[in-house]
Amino acid sequence: MIRHIVLLTWSEEATDDQKAAVADGLAALPAVIPQLRRYDLGTDLGLAAGNSDFAVVAEFDSVADYEVYRDHPVHQAVIAEHIKPILAARAALQVEL
Amino acid sequence: MIRHIVLLTWSEEATDDQKAAVADGLAALPAVIPQLRRYDLGTDLGLAAGNSDFAVVAEFDSVADYEVYRDHPVHQAVIAEHIKPILAARAALQVEL
Repeated sequence: MIRHIVLLTWSEEATDDQKAAVADGLAALPAVIPQLRRYDLGTDLGLAAGNSDFAVVAEFDSVADYEVYRDHPVHQAVIAEHIKPILAARAALQVEL
Repeated sequence: MIRHIVLLTWSEEATDDQKAAVADGLAALPAVIPQLRRYDLGTDLGLAAGNSDFAVVAEFDSVADYEVYRDHPVHQAVIAEHIKPILAARAALQVEL
């Protein structure tokens, strides 16, 4: 099993509506990307200063399935239309579970 | 359920032994911190440039249990002795699962 983890930090100017549009856009992906075995989205709880703002944790049966997700046009559209415009920082990796 | 996610990036000078010592030190924590409901450690698979190097994904029943882990002396010792000396960057957050 492959786990893909992304931590995103929003820009100061990002509005609540823009942040919600990211979550909504990503939440629609499991319906169109069957390779997603598990898909957890979450907003930071504010327990520590300097935290990232949003987490995506996606799980796949294989690297090939992860790459389908990574390159999927609907996913790429969410990135281009909703994430990039308000993105200040991104940390990511893929690990074997 | 609370999920604590940390993505760590090592310094250029970090040796494989130093990286292994981090994994070993963290892997010993579930035995001394019963509040850990799930504890996944992983090294990046190298599928994308610019990725972080190491992931810690820990799950707890409550924020209070997460704070026990966060402040636990054995955990703090791993951070001070093994992580900080080779740390280049850190991204983290806590989300509700």
